[in-house]
Amino acid sequence: MAGNTFGSIFSVTTFGESHGPGLGAVIDGCPPGVPLDRALIQRDLDRRRPGQSAATTSRSEADQVEILSGVFEGLTTGTPIGLLIRNEDHRSGAYDHLREIFRPGHADLGFFLKFGLRDHRGGGRSSGRETVARVAAGAVARAVLAGFGATVRGFTVQVGGIRAEKFLPDTAEGNPLRCPDPDAAEAMLALILECKEEGDSVGGMVEVRAEGVPAGMGEPVFDKLDAAIAGALMGIGGVKGVELGVGFAAAAMRGSRYSDPFEPGPPVRSRHNRAGGTLGGISTGESVVARIAVKPTSSIAREQETVNLKGERTTVKIGGRHDPCLCPRIVPVAEAMLCLVLCDHLLRQRAQTGSAGPLGKV
Amino acid sequence: MAGNTFGSIFSVTTFGESHGPGLGAVIDGCPPGVPLDRALIQRDLDRRRPGQSAATTSRSEADQVEILSGVFEGLTTGTPIGLLIRNEDHRSGAYDHLREIFRPGHADLGFFLKFGLRDHRGGGRSSGRETVARVAAGAVARAVLAGFGATVRGFTVQVGGIRAEKFLPDTAEGNPLRCPDPDAAEAMLALILECKEEGDSVGGMVEVRAEGVPAGMGEPVFDKLDAAIAGALMGIGGVKGVELGVGFAAAAMRGSRYSDPFEPGPPVRSRHNRAGGTLGGISTGESVVARIAVKPTSSIAREQETVNLKGERTTVKIGGRHDPCLCPRIVPVAEAMLCLVLCDHLLRQRAQTGSAGPLGKV
Amino acid sequence: MAGNTFGSIFSVTTFGESHGPGLGAVIDGCPPGVPLDRALIQRDLDRRRPGQSAATTSRSEADQVEILSGVFEGLTTGTPIGLLIRNEDHRSGAYDHLREIFRPGHADLGFFLKFGLRDHRGGGRSSGRETVARVAAGAVARAVLAGFGATVRGFTVQVGGIRAEKFLPDTAEGNPLRCPDPDAAEAMLALILECKEEGDSVGGMVEVRAEGVPAGMGEPVFDKLDAAIAGALMGIGGVKGVELGVGFAAAAMRGSRYSDPFEPGPPVRSRHNRAGGTLGGISTGESVVARIAVKPTSSIAREQETVNLKGERTTVKIGGRHDPCLCPRIVPVAEAMLCLVLCDHLLRQRAQTGSAGPLGKV
Amino acid sequence: MAGNTFGSIFSVTTFGESHGPGLGAVIDGCPPGVPLDRALIQRDLDRRRPGQSAATTSRSEADQVEILSGVFEGLTTGTPIGLLIRNEDHRSGAYDHLREIFRPGHADLGFFLKFGLRDHRGGGRSSGRETVARVAAGAVARAVLAGFGATVRGFTVQVGGIRAEKFLPDTAEGNPLRCPDPDAAEAMLALILECKEEGDSVGGMVEVRAEGVPAGMGEPVFDKLDAAIAGALMGIGGVKGVELGVGFAAAAMRGSRYSDPFEPGPPVRSRHNRAGGTLGGISTGESVVARIAVKPTSSIAREQETVNLKGERTTVKIGGRHDPCLCPRIVPVAEAMLCLVLCDHLLRQRAQTGSAGPLGKV
Repeated sequence: MAGNTFGSIFSVTTFGESHGPGLGAVIDGCPPGVPLDRALIQRDLDRRRPGQSAATTSRSEADQVEILSGVFEGLTTGTPIGLLIRNEDHRSGAYDHLREIFRPGHADLGFFLKFGLRDHRGGGRSSGRETVARVAAGAVARAVLAGFGATVRGFTVQVGGIRAEKFLPDTAEGNPLRCPDPDAAEAMLALILECKEEGDSVGGMVEVRAEGVPAGMGEPVFDKLDAAIAGALMGIGGVKGVELGVGFAAAAMRGSRYSDPFEPGPPVRSRHNRAGGTLGGISTGESVVARIAVKPTSSIAREQETVNLKGERTTVKIGGRHDPCLCPRIVPVAEAMLCLVLCDHLLRQRAQTGSAGPLGKV
Repeated sequence: MAGNTFGSIFSVTTFGESHGPGLGAVIDGCPPGVPLDRALIQRDLDRRRPGQSAATTSRSEADQVEILSGVFEGLTTGTPIGLLIRNEDHRSGAYDHLREIFRPGHADLGFFLKFGLRDHRGGGRSSGRETVARVAAGAVARAVLAGFGATVRGFTVQVGGIRAEKFLPDTAEGNPLRCPDPDAAEAMLALILECKEEGDSVGGMVEVRAEGVPAGMGEPVFDKLDAAIAGALMGIGGVKGVELGVGFAAAAMRGSRYSDPFEPGPPVRSRHNRAGGTLGGISTGESVVARIAVKPTSSIAREQETVNLKGERTTVKIGGRHDPCLCPRIVPVAEAMLCLVLCDHLLRQRAQTGSAGPLGKV
Repeated sequence: MAGNTFGSIFSVTTFGESHGPGLGAVIDGCPPGVPLDRALIQRDLDRRRPGQSAATTSRSEADQVEILSGVFEGLTTGTPIGLLIRNEDHRSGAYDHLREIFRPGHADLGFFLKFGLRDHRGGGRSSGRETVARVAAGAVARAVLAGFGATVRGFTVQVGGIRAEKFLPDTAEGNPLRCPDPDAAEAMLALILECKEEGDSVGGMVEVRAEGVPAGMGEPVFDKLDAAIAGALMGIGGVKGVELGVGFAAAAMRGSRYSDPFEPGPPVRSRHNRAGGTLGGISTGESVVARIAVKPTSSIAREQETVNLKGERTTVKIGGRHDPCLCPRIVPVAEAMLCLVLCDHLLRQRAQTGSAGPLGKV
Repeated sequence: MAGNTFGSIFSVTTFGESHGPGLGAVIDGCPPGVPLDRALIQRDLDRRRPGQSAATTSRSEADQVEILSGVFEGLTTGTPIGLLIRNEDHRSGAYDHLREIFRPGHADLGFFLKFGLRDHRGGGRSSGRETVARVAAGAVARAVLAGFGATVRGFTVQVGGIRAEKFLPDTAEGNPLRCPDPDAAEAMLALILECKEEGDSVGGMVEVRAEGVPAGMGEPVFDKLDAAIAGALMGIGGVKGVELGVGFAAAAMRGSRYSDPFEPGPPVRSRHNRAGGTLGGISTGESVVARIAVKPTSSIAREQETVNLKGERTTVKIGGRHDPCLCPRIVPVAEAMLCLVLCDHLLRQRAQTGSAGPLGKV
C-alpha cells in the first residue's frame, strides 16, 4: 500500500497539497456512537494553525474543517468520516522561482527522484501543511480515546541549547512555545526571535505523553507499541530521532542502575517507569512518554548553495513564510500521531482479546 | 493485523518461542529468480548465534535453517519461502521458578496483561530468541538487495561510556563487538567482562548503514523511509531510541549550521548527508545511516525486587544464560531489519513507478 | 482494516452517504505521470448518473466531480488523488417514515445490528449512491490501464427471463439497457416499464469483459485474479452471484468436454477460453469474462410486511425514487470494480516481478 | 501484499509445494486462551486426506500436523501458531515429462507467465495440495468460532447432472460424496466411477452453511461478508462460480416474488432467507448459505492437445494421481475458507464495536 494510510483498524487516509484546493482525511473503522462535532476537531486544528504568535509563520489559514460523512445527529455512525479543510492563503506566486530549483534539506529532491515530477508550489504534498489532515484525524482519535479514559498532551522541552527544567504541564498552553517550564519558555522565545531576525532557524525537542492508557496495547513482535510510536513520530517532517522512556541515556547505563523494580498493586507499577510505559512493547498502564528531536527549519532567509533541475550549481534564497522553530506547531501534530497510534492499537487489542484493557489482572 | 508480519509487499511473518519446537519465518512476495540457498541464510544466522565469544550468552544453539518451500533448483520461485529453525538447547527447567514471577524490565508483565496468560519459559515469544527468524528472513532480503547493488552493515559504536572514535568498517567483524574501532573494541570488551563478573550488564549503541540504496524509496506521508526504519529498529527488544543522520544533535543546531548544500552530480549529493540518506522521507541515493540506543540487559544475576502473579512483593535472581551486553548480537538483527525495510520499499517503489531506482534524473 | 478501502497498492478509500453533504474517494498509489482531468472522470460518472432514461430512477443528481489533490498540470503526481461529489437532490423528508422501520431486503437491518444506530435517510452509507465514489475511482484506474493497453466494458445480458442472444458490443451504449443485443434490449425495456407500472421490479445479469489484460496478474493462493474479481463484484449492492468463464455450467460438465487445448502462439492461447481469462488464478492474456446475478430492486411501491425498531410487526410502502431494474446502472459500477481489481493487480505484479506483463514468454 | 496471507486480523499465511519438504500455515491474531491441540486440527485434515474412497486420488499422505508454536499447555497464547505438515508420498518422477509441457486447464501456464519459471513437480505451489494448509488453519478458526456458538458444514449437492434433492445434513459424512441426500450420493458415486473408468472427470457443486453466526459481521462497502465469502471460495482451485442465498436464480425474479418480509423476533428474521444470511453484506444471524460451481478435474487420463515451453504444438497424457471429481475433497476446504472468513470478520466486528455480536437489538 502507498504511504498515505495510517493504522490498520482505526485507519486514516489523508490527501492534499499545500497549494491545491484543500486537504483532508478519511477515517475508517471509527467505533460507532462516539460524540463528535466540528468544534471538537476545530479545537485541535486551531492549536496547529499558523500565525498565532511571533514564533510562527505569518501564513494565515482559517483551517475550517467540514465533516463530509460518518456523523449523524452528533454521533459517529461507524462508517467513514470524511474531513475537508480548504486552502485559502496560498500565494503560489512566491514559489515560481523554485520550479527549477531544489531547496537544500527539503523534500524537493526526494519527490523528484521518486516521481519524476513534482508540485513545486510550497512543496506540494511534502509541505508541513499536510499535517493539518493528521491533526484533524487525530482529534477524532482523541475523542475515541477519551471514552477509554486516555489523554495525550505534548510539550516543547528544548529549543536550541535551552531545555525545560521544570514540568508544569498546565502552564504549557499558556505560552507560545507550549513549554511546561514558563521560565525556559521565555528564553526559548527570545532565542527564536533572535534567529528569525537573523534569517536563521533553530532545532528543538518535543515530548508527548499519554496518561490513562489501558494496559495490554501493542502487537509484538513487529508492531510493538513503542515501535509504532517511533514510526509514527519519525514520519513527521523535520523529526530526526525518537526515544521512549530514558531513551538514549540507556546506552551509557548499567543494568543494575537501569533496573526498575515492580511495585505491588493493583495495578503493578515499575518504580521509575524507565521504559516509558511499555514492557516488551506492550503498554503496562503507566505513562507513555516519547521525545522527538526536531531539526531547524530548512527554509532560511539566507542564500544557500544548491543545484537546479539540470543538476547545475546555483543558489537559492527562500521566500515564502516559514516557522523559525518547528517545535510549537509540531506539538499538536505529535499529539495527533500518538492519538492515532493509541486508538488503533486499542482497537487491535480489542479485536484479538475482546478487551480494551488488561486481560491479565495483577 | 496482528504484529507478526512485517512489510507490505516483501512481507515476512515469523513465529516461534524460545522453548518450543522451533522458530521460523514465511516470506511472501519475494521476486522470482533470485539465487538463494541454505548457506546464504546460514551465514547471517551464524553471526547472530550465541556462544561465539566471552561477550555473549553461553546458550548453545546450532540454529540450522531448513528451507521448506519457495526455492526450486537454486532460485526463488516467487511463492512463499518457508524457513524453520529448530530449538535444541532449551533448558526450560531453569525457568520454572519464573512461572509465578514477573522479571523487572522484561516483557513478562506486558504479555500477561495483554493475553491473560504467558509461556514463562525463557520469555516464550518475547525472548530475544525470536530474532533468529528476523535474521533468517533478513538474509533473503539481503540477497534481493544485492541484485540491486545495495548492501547493509551494522556496527557496535558505543558500550556504556565508551564510543568508537574511528570508523574502519572492515575491521568490525574481526572483533567480538563488531566495533569499527579496534581500540575501542578492546576497551568495550573489557567493560563487558567486568560487568559480567559483577553479575551486571551494560547498554550501548549500534549503527546500521546501507550503501548503494537506489533513490526514490520511501512512501510519504506515513511510511517514509526514515519512519519505516525507525519503527523497524525500535521494535527490536531492548532498543529505546532511534535516530537518523545527525539525529538528536539536530535539536541544538541552527538552520544555518545544519544547512546541507547540494553538490552537482550526477547524481546530485548533499555535502554532509546530515539527513542520513533521505529527504522528505525518500532515499536520495546517499548512505542511509541510523543509530539505536540499546538498554542494558534486564536479566542480571543480582537479586531484584519484583512482584508475583498475585501482585505480592517478592524478589527474583535470574538464572538462565544472558548476554551482558546486547549490542554485538543486535548488530545482525538490526541489519536484518534494515534489509527488510529496504527490500519492501524497493518493491513498493517499483509497484507504483515501475522503477526500482530514481524516476527523476539529476 | 474496516471495509472502505479497496486494493493493496492502487488503493481506494471511499466515504459518504446518500443524504449527507457528499461522497468521495481517495486514491493512493496511483502511478505518477498519468494524464488525468475532470472530464475523464466525469464521463464515467455521467454513465452511472440517474435519470437518464425511463428505465432508471428519477432522482436527479448532477454528480459533478471535483479533483481535490494529486493532479498537477494535467498529470497525476503519485500523491493521493482526492475526489469529491456533492449531493444535491436529497429529499430526505421522503425517508422520515423509515426512521423506525426496517425495509425488507435492505441493508437497514444489517447496519442497525452492526452499529446499533443508522442514518435512515435513503439508506445512508448503504445506499446504492455510494457507488458514485467507486465509479469515480474506477475512472482513474481505467486511465492507468489504458496506458497498458487494457480496456474494460460491461453489458446487461439478462433482464428477468430475457437474455441477450447476440453480442454486438458497440451497440450496447446505444440503448438504455447497455445490452449488446439491440433486439433483446427492446424486450428488456418493455419488461422493465411493465414492472415499473406495476410497482414492481425485476432482476437480471450483467457481464463485464476486459481485453488486452497483460498476462501474469493474480496473486495465488488467496488473491488470485478470479478470487479478487469475485470479491469485488459480489460487494456491489444487489449482486447475489458471480461466475467466470463457463461458470456454473462447469458443474454439469465432464473433463473431456471442458478440456480446453492450448493453441501455439505467441502468445499461447486456450482454444475456448472456458476459464474466462485466468489459469491458476493468473491472467493469461486472454479476455477476462465475468458475469454477475443482480437481484430485483428491493424497494418496490407495494405494501410489504416488516418490523419496526421495537421488533413489532408492521407494514411499509416505500416512497423515494428507485430503479425498477438495477442492471443498466450497475454496468458502469461493475466496470469500475473490474478496473480497480486489474489496476491493483497490475501494480502488484510489477512490484514482485518488475514487469507489468508476462515474465515467462511463450 | 503478495497473495499467501488471508484475513486482516485473524490472518493466515500459508506456504509449501506439492513436492517440496512440506506445507504449513502461520496463524497470527488468534485470540488467547482457546483450547487447541493437534487432534482437533488433525480431524479436519483427515477429512481432506486423499485415498479415503474410490472416488478420490490414490496418492497416500498421512498429513500429520505438527504445532510449532502459539499453544502452551493446551491453550492458544495469542502469539502466532505455526503449523507444519510434511510431504511423504511425492513421486516427483511421475512429473518429469511435464517439465517442458503446459497441461491444458492447469495453472502451469499461469505460473510460468507470472514468474518466468515454475516448479513443474505436481504443479508445485499451484497443486490442490496447497489446500492442506488452508484446512489446518481453518480448523483453528473453527475452534475459535465454536467459542461463539457458530458452526460450519459443507456438502456436495451436485455431481454432473445429478443434484441432491433431500437435505439430511447428518447423513452427509456417511457417504464418500459428503452429500446430504443418500440416494443422490449413490448415483453420484456411480457417475464418478464411470468417469474414472473412462479416464474422464466430472464437475459438481458444493454448498457450505454456517449456523449460529453472530449478527453484525461484514465490513461495507468493499469487505461485505458476502463479498469476502465470494472471494474466499472463488480462490479455491477449480471453482468457477459462487452464489449466496437464491443466487443466480434472482436474475430471473421479480421484486414482488423475491420480497422477503421480516418476521418479528427477537431476533427479527426474514421469512425465506433469500439473501443467504446477510443484508447489506452484514450478517443478520440467519444461516449463511453459499454454493460454488466446481469444474471437472483438468487432469484426465486422455491425450490432450497442448503446447510446450517453446510454444510448439504437442500432446500430453497426464499421469500422476488425480480425483475424478473434486467435490468431496473440496468440501472440507470450502468449510475451512468459510471458517476463516467468519473468524476474521468476527474479530473485525469486535475491533470496531467492542462486541462479537449484534450491537443493535431487535
